[in-house]
Amino acid sequence: MKLNWSTLTGPTVLVNRTRAKRNIESMKAKAEAAQVQLRPHFKTHQSTIIGKWFGTPETTPIAVSSLKMANEFASAGWRDIHIAIPVNPRELPALNNLASKVNLTLSIEHEDTLELLSHLSHKVAVSVEVDTGYGRTGIHWQQYGRIKRLLDALQAHKQVNQLGLMVHSGHSYLAHGLKDIQGVHQESSHRLKELLDMMDWQGEPLRVSIGDTPTCSQMSTFPGATEIRPGNYVFYDLQQKLIGSCDWNDIALAVACPVIARYPEREEVVVHGGAVHFSKDSAEMNGQKVFGQVMHTTENGWGAPVGDAYIKGLSQEHGKIHLPKTMIKDLKLGDMLVIVPAHSCLTMSAMGEFICFDD
Amino acid sequence: MKLNWSTLTGPTVLVNRTRAKRNIESMKAKAEAAQVQLRPHFKTHQSTIIGKWFGTPETTPIAVSSLKMANEFASAGWRDIHIAIPVNPRELPALNNLASKVNLTLSIEHEDTLELLSHLSHKVAVSVEVDTGYGRTGIHWQQYGRIKRLLDALQAHKQVNQLGLMVHSGHSYLAHGLKDIQGVHQESSHRLKELLDMMDWQGEPLRVSIGDTPTCSQMSTFPGATEIRPGNYVFYDLQQKLIGSCDWNDIALAVACPVIARYPEREEVVVHGGAVHFSKDSAEMNGQKVFGQVMHTTENGWGAPVGDAYIKGLSQEHGKIHLPKTMIKDLKLGDMLVIVPAHSCLTMSAMGEFICFDD
Repeated sequence: MKLNWSTLTGPTVLVNRTRAKRNIESMKAKAEAAQVQLRPHFKTHQSTIIGKWFGTPETTPIAVSSLKMANEFASAGWRDIHIAIPVNPRELPALNNLASKVNLTLSIEHEDTLELLSHLSHKVAVSVEVDTGYGRTGIHWQQYGRIKRLLDALQAHKQVNQLGLMVHSGHSYLAHGLKDIQGVHQESSHRLKELLDMMDWQGEPLRVSIGDTPTCSQMSTFPGATEIRPGNYVFYDLQQKLIGSCDWNDIALAVACPVIARYPEREEVVVHGGAVHFSKDSAEMNGQKVFGQVMHTTENGWGAPVGDAYIKGLSQEHGKIHLPKTMIKDLKLGDMLVIVPAHSCLTMSAMGEFICFDD
Repeated sequence: MKLNWSTLTGPTVLVNRTRAKRNIESMKAKAEAAQVQLRPHFKTHQSTIIGKWFGTPETTPIAVSSLKMANEFASAGWRDIHIAIPVNPRELPALNNLASKVNLTLSIEHEDTLELLSHLSHKVAVSVEVDTGYGRTGIHWQQYGRIKRLLDALQAHKQVNQLGLMVHSGHSYLAHGLKDIQGVHQESSHRLKELLDMMDWQGEPLRVSIGDTPTCSQMSTFPGATEIRPGNYVFYDLQQKLIGSCDWNDIALAVACPVIARYPEREEVVVHGGAVHFSKDSAEMNGQKVFGQVMHTTENGWGAPVGDAYIKGLSQEHGKIHLPKTMIKDLKLGDMLVIVPAHSCLTMSAMGEFICFDD
C-alpha cells in the first residue's frame, strides 16, 4: 500500500508498516538469540490491527498498562495478558471477570495486595515488581527478605497459578548514547542478579520479566531474565533516536500536518497539529526543548531529517515550527509537513487513528 | 446530583457543575456589563452536554479550534460557529459543506487564502487574525495597510457575508498576578486601537473579537472589541490559579485517581493517572515543575489544596505524587486522590468522559 497524499486533510498519523514489521522481526530474532520470551508491550500502539503484525493473537503473550487496554485486546483474541501496572483494588471485580477469559498476569508491589487477591474466584499469574533503580514503582531490590516472603505467600495462595518478578528500567530514557544505555542495563542486571542470589529461590520457576526499549534495542543478553517486554520499539521516535536506541530510518511513525500560516521573517510556520495530537512530551535537541523533528517529505512517506527544523511550541491545536527560510520559500498554505514526534506512544494514544503505508 | 465515590474505579474527570455554571454566568454578566457579545470557546470542554449549560444551542454563538469540533457542535444544534484557527486549504470542501448548514466564521491571516475562498459555494463570515503580541498566528498589528486591503478584498468578495478582526493574547498565560494580566490587556488593547485608528475603516461594521481567559476573567472593559471569546473559564485549572485568573474555589474540574503504590520513606505515592489522562502540560509552582495539585477530598468533591502535595512526574499511565508523610500514613491502596490538573482543556480533551456533581 502506498501513501496517497491527496486524501489527507487534517493532522494524520502515518505508520510505515515495512519499518514497523522490520522492528518487530528484529526484536523477535534478538529474543530468540538471547533465549528469552518476548512479550511486546502493546501500550505503544493500542491497536488490534497493529497488534496482529506481532503474530497470531492466540499465541502472542502481551503486556498492557491498563485494564481498559487488557479488555480491548482480550475481546480481539489475545489470551496471555500481563497488566504491567500495580493492581488497583477498585478494579478487582473487573479483573476477576477478565481472568475468567484469559491467562491474566497481575502486578503487585505490596503485601496489602495479597489479601485483595483472595477476592478473586479465577486463577491469575502474579508478578512482583522490583525497583532496580528507576524509582517509580516496585520494591527496592535489596529488600530480598520482603520479596521472598511475598513470593512464598503467593506460592501458597490458592488463586495464584504462576509466579514472577518484573523490572522496568525506565531511567534508560535519560541515557545519551550506547555507553549510558549499557550502564543502566549492567547496573539493573547486577541488582537483579544480587536479588536472585540472595533470595536463593527454590520454589516454582519464576517468570523474570524486564523491559524498556533502549536496553532491549541495544543489548543482546539479559542476565537473570526469562522474558523481555519492550513496547516503543515498534515505532521508535525522536526521544529514542536521541537516547541512541535506533537510527532515523528505524522510525516507523510520523505525523503529517498541514501548514496553515507562514512567517519567513521569523523562520517559522504554523501547522494544524497541536498538544492534542503530539502530546506535550518533549526531547532536548541541541540544548533546545523540542516536540518533534521535521523530516523531508517524499512521494511515499518521509526521508532524512531536515536540518534546524523542529516543533518549538505547541498549543491545543497549533504547532509552531522553526524552519529554515529557504524551505519556507517553497511551502504553500495546505502543504503537509511530516514530523517525527518526541514520543510516539503518547502521540498514538492521543490520536487513536492512523494511516499505513509500505515502502 | 451528588458524587458517589463507590462507583468510581479508574482515573475519572470530576466536573463540579455548580461551579462551572457559576463561572458561565459570571462571564455572561461581565460581557453584558461591558456591552460585548460573548462567544465562549468550546475547545475547553468539547462536550455537547456541557455546551448546553451556556444556553440554548440555537442562540449561542461559539468558537472552536478545529473543523472536527465545528462539525460535532453543528450536528448537535449550534448554528453560529467560528473556527478560530487559520483556514486549512485541504478542508475547503468540508468547510463549504458545513457553511451550508450553519453561520460559519472562518479565520484567515494571509492574502493567499482569498483566492481559496472563491471555491466556496456557500457564504461565510471571515475574521482576519491580528497579532498584538502573542507571536503565534495573525498579521502584525502595525501592518495597517495590509490588514485594510485584506478587509477591502473580503468586503468585495461575493462569498463573504460578514467581516471581522480576531485577536488572541495568549501571552497572558505567562502572567503572574493581576498586574501582569493588566499589562498584557492594556498593551493589546492599545495596539488594537492603534490599528483601528490607523485603518480608519469606513466599510461594513466589523466584528472585533478578542479573548483569553486571564484577561476576560480579570478585566472589566474591552476597548475596541465587540466580542470576547474565552474558553478555559468554565473550569479554570492550576495554570489559571497561578496566573491569577481565578481562586481555588472557582476551579470546577479535577481528576480522581486511585492510589496504586505508597512510598512513605520518599514522601511519594503513585496513582493510576498518567500523561494520557493529564497530558504533559505543566505549571511552575514554588520553582518546581508540577502537573497537578492534590486537593483535600470531601464527601462530595474536593475542598482546599493540600500543602506540598502535587504531581511531580507523569509516565503514560502512572502519576508520581509528592505527598507529606502524615497524609500517606492515612492512605490505603485504592483510595482516591483528587487532583486539579495543570491545564483543564488538555485533560478534558485527553479523557473525553467526565462525571458531574452539584454542590
